[in-house]
Amino acid sequence: MARPGDSSISMASPPPSSLSPPLIPMELHEINRVKLLHSLREHLSSSPLQGFIFLQGGEEQTRHCTDHTELFRQESYFAYLFGVREPGFYGAIDIATGDSILFAPRLPEDYVVWLGEIKPLSFFKERYMVSLVFYTDEIPKVLHDRFQGSGRPLLFLLHGLNTDSNKFSKPADFEGIEKFKTDMSILHPIIAECRVFKSDMELALIQFANDISSEAHVEVMRKTRVGMKEYQLESMFLHHTYMYGGCRHCSYTCICATGDNSSVLHYGHAAAPNDRTLEDGDLALLDMGAEYHFYGSDITCSFPVNGKFTSDQCLVYNAVLSAHDAVMSSIRPGVSWVDMHKLAERFILESLKKGCLLVGEVDDMMAERLGAVFMPHGLGHFLGIDTHDPGGYLKGSKRPLESGLRSLRTSRELQEGMVITVEPGCYFIDALLNPAMQSSNTSKFLNCGEISRFQGFGGVRIESDVHVTADGCVNMTKVPRQTWEIEAVMAGQSWPLKNEQPCSENCVES
Amino acid sequence: MARPGDSSISMASPPPSSLSPPLIPMELHEINRVKLLHSLREHLSSSPLQGFIFLQGGEEQTRHCTDHTELFRQESYFAYLFGVREPGFYGAIDIATGDSILFAPRLPEDYVVWLGEIKPLSFFKERYMVSLVFYTDEIPKVLHDRFQGSGRPLLFLLHGLNTDSNKFSKPADFEGIEKFKTDMSILHPIIAECRVFKSDMELALIQFANDISSEAHVEVMRKTRVGMKEYQLESMFLHHTYMYGGCRHCSYTCICATGDNSSVLHYGHAAAPNDRTLEDGDLALLDMGAEYHFYGSDITCSFPVNGKFTSDQCLVYNAVLSAHDAVMSSIRPGVSWVDMHKLAERFILESLKKGCLLVGEVDDMMAERLGAVFMPHGLGHFLGIDTHDPGGYLKGSKRPLESGLRSLRTSRELQEGMVITVEPGCYFIDALLNPAMQSSNTSKFLNCGEISRFQGFGGVRIESDVHVTADGCVNMTKVPRQTWEIEAVMAGQSWPLKNEQPCSENCVES
Repeated sequence: MARPGDSSISMASPPPSSLSPPLIPMELHEINRVKLLHSLREHLSSSPLQGFIFLQGGEEQTRHCTDHTELFRQESYFAYLFGVREPGFYGAIDIATGDSILFAPRLPEDYVVWLGEIKPLSFFKERYMVSLVFYTDEIPKVLHDRFQGSGRPLLFLLHGLNTDSNKFSKPADFEGIEKFKTDMSILHPIIAECRVFKSDMELALIQFANDISSEAHVEVMRKTRVGMKEYQLESMFLHHTYMYGGCRHCSYTCICATGDNSSVLHYGHAAAPNDRTLEDGDLALLDMGAEYHFYGSDITCSFPVNGKFTSDQCLVYNAVLSAHDAVMSSIRPGVSWVDMHKLAERFILESLKKGCLLVGEVDDMMAERLGAVFMPHGLGHFLGIDTHDPGGYLKGSKRPLESGLRSLRTSRELQEGMVITVEPGCYFIDALLNPAMQSSNTSKFLNCGEISRFQGFGGVRIESDVHVTADGCVNMTKVPRQTWEIEAVMAGQSWPLKNEQPCSENCVES
Repeated sequence: MARPGDSSISMASPPPSSLSPPLIPMELHEINRVKLLHSLREHLSSSPLQGFIFLQGGEEQTRHCTDHTELFRQESYFAYLFGVREPGFYGAIDIATGDSILFAPRLPEDYVVWLGEIKPLSFFKERYMVSLVFYTDEIPKVLHDRFQGSGRPLLFLLHGLNTDSNKFSKPADFEGIEKFKTDMSILHPIIAECRVFKSDMELALIQFANDISSEAHVEVMRKTRVGMKEYQLESMFLHHTYMYGGCRHCSYTCICATGDNSSVLHYGHAAAPNDRTLEDGDLALLDMGAEYHFYGSDITCSFPVNGKFTSDQCLVYNAVLSAHDAVMSSIRPGVSWVDMHKLAERFILESLKKGCLLVGEVDDMMAERLGAVFMPHGLGHFLGIDTHDPGGYLKGSKRPLESGLRSLRTSRELQEGMVITVEPGCYFIDALLNPAMQSSNTSKFLNCGEISRFQGFGGVRIESDVHVTADGCVNMTKVPRQTWEIEAVMAGQSWPLKNEQPCSENCVES
């Protein structure tokens, strides 16, 4: 197996990272709470402002019947409001006073021997900047005592559909909840909508996750060699983001797909575990993003594993890049995400037509939804504490039904403060191409002779994370995107490049 | 933050690993099945040999209500019998014929686009070397068709207590199970007992997990620097075992404890996430082990982060090492694990007495269970597909009740073929020392003046994985253990050392 690092380390190698993990501002969560409270109070304007927003944090899980503990990562809504990294907590916000209350688990005495110091409640009060902290076994009493209305206190619980998983969030539960009134419908859409719009502090964390992940992508690109295993690229990424960025968690399981695997959109899972050997001539599609204090990144780079694009690779790569760049230039508040998706499709189809893979009018292809054959996934999704951040479909809004568009994780108009991924792709997937070649609606566009050359080619995806601003957008992802930039970095040049370069030899600029 | 790698890379750095991932012999699981079948048939000798051993594999889990998929790792009993890495399977062994049958999930058509090739059943038959493969929706029909007895077919399901977690394994469930007779008591103790004794193929995997983890421990030792964060040591370990060993999973969350944290036995979890900065004079206690094709390793090294033991560190380290070595020399079939634990305690107490921390007769200390103040955990545990492998307590056997001994994960006599960890430790834990100083039974042994010097010292653990052979044992863990070996490796010498060295300057050999 090839081993990077045992060859060609120059005497004056640059430091492995220019970054270090930033301090975590717990005010971020205070701001999130205030924002939610404000929205909820507005919603309740005609009802009495009383009761509690009440959430249950995640619990540590063990693997089946064993005592093997999975590394805990907080439930995302709870993380949003309270930033608590420990399992077993509950949290409340008093709607009347705005007080925030954490409930910590009462730990057994021998915790100190096995798991560490039993922190006093004051520790959590200070660390998480909340008004009050009690133990979880005090929940009923504390909430009853503090409730200023009459009758049973009202709890606004989190219950609602996640439109990516089609699962419902589980409302908080605790001993004694039957002594409360509960509302299960008001909170979810309001808090989900709060999460759609990122504060400056949230943006800073997403930016850091992007910075360290961008740097790691460049590192991986540079160390990729024919003969390696795909998982070695994953290992290098994970190591760089943890070692220099303090990122213990990834936003999602790394997709390290090479060759034909790069046409499998969610490659890398346990049944397809990044275990292929890199071959000369392969494209690599690496979709990897680190998470820092719950906030994530989601970045895809595609590049030739031997460091030089072939002309076919250039053709497909630049088709996707043109779509990526066209969307980037068009994003601004008021733009419809469905239109952005179609824009990307149009650029890809135009490029494939120019490359002689397609024939006919692009408008006609668009009408037949041909784009979905080459890009079956949506153009992108909200990004934050979840990789597929919630809020993609507002209550009552409907998913588009057309092929390709129905995979969109949102169909909303963009607004300032959203963070969304822009990830056009172009894949050669037999399971989609073969039916398209057989259908009279689409076969007329496909130049089968040319396309057959791309069997086993895999695919290209280019994914950046974007912050929508008042008059456009900021690309938070800082990786080489032009073919010549990628080739230069893979040849050993530092990133960002010092000098602009001519285009790569096999690539004709479009 | 300190960064290893940006300094002192010599021109002729040795290759980062001498290892590469071995081929996985699926016969291993066939052998496991045959062994279980043999045991079960023996148990059933007076009953008709019919029915099926029937297990359900693990399912992929998502994080709360999101579509974030946790990286799947197979349920351990299912892994033992079938070695299947994919989620959603069931497996059966026909007790009459010995045929092994896998049931694979029927995947939706669009799986091929999102998750990869839909493999034909023949793929799994060949890969996992089973007699037959069907779809999970065919379970009732297949088992009914193949059952040779009369009446409803009998399924032996897995249901029993895990004595480490105190949880019960969940018996298989599927649509149509009500048409079967089920037995929930016979299978569990028999299969657990099979897992206690390792075959040569199992030993080879555990040995590889040990080899790559040992190498990674040495790598980490060598790159540890004052000023680093604990998690950077974790990151280096994870990277080495994945990059060069193909180990995607660890046996357990890495414990990277320095300074006082090293007295927290299970440090490193989400609430104590390896985030302290290494200080000059700290001891590090690193408990980290990789897993390869389900089989794990569990290794602890303790060393001074600045590369030189102080005399106090030597005192405690050598106390633990003497216990470790004494146990190693004594392990052989027929030896009681409780006696081994007490032997370790005795060596530690002897050393602490020699070091003037304790006064009085060691026999008296043993009678008062003073050892448990310094080593509150058990001496070790079975190791295999689970870090705490099952079978520690046979049905009907009881845990010892005495302080310290009640933490033992087994009280059995050792037998050939067992793999067990030997992990004595000595910790300075206020929560245990203070009561011991106040108790009239134990205070007389404690030289408080001397012991007070060790407040904040943390602790030392030395953990190796041992294979019990016919006439002794093999230590599968290959890391520097003598203080001078550790100092030499940390000073840059290659491992294994080329030359024997004198003892380290601050350490008096005991």
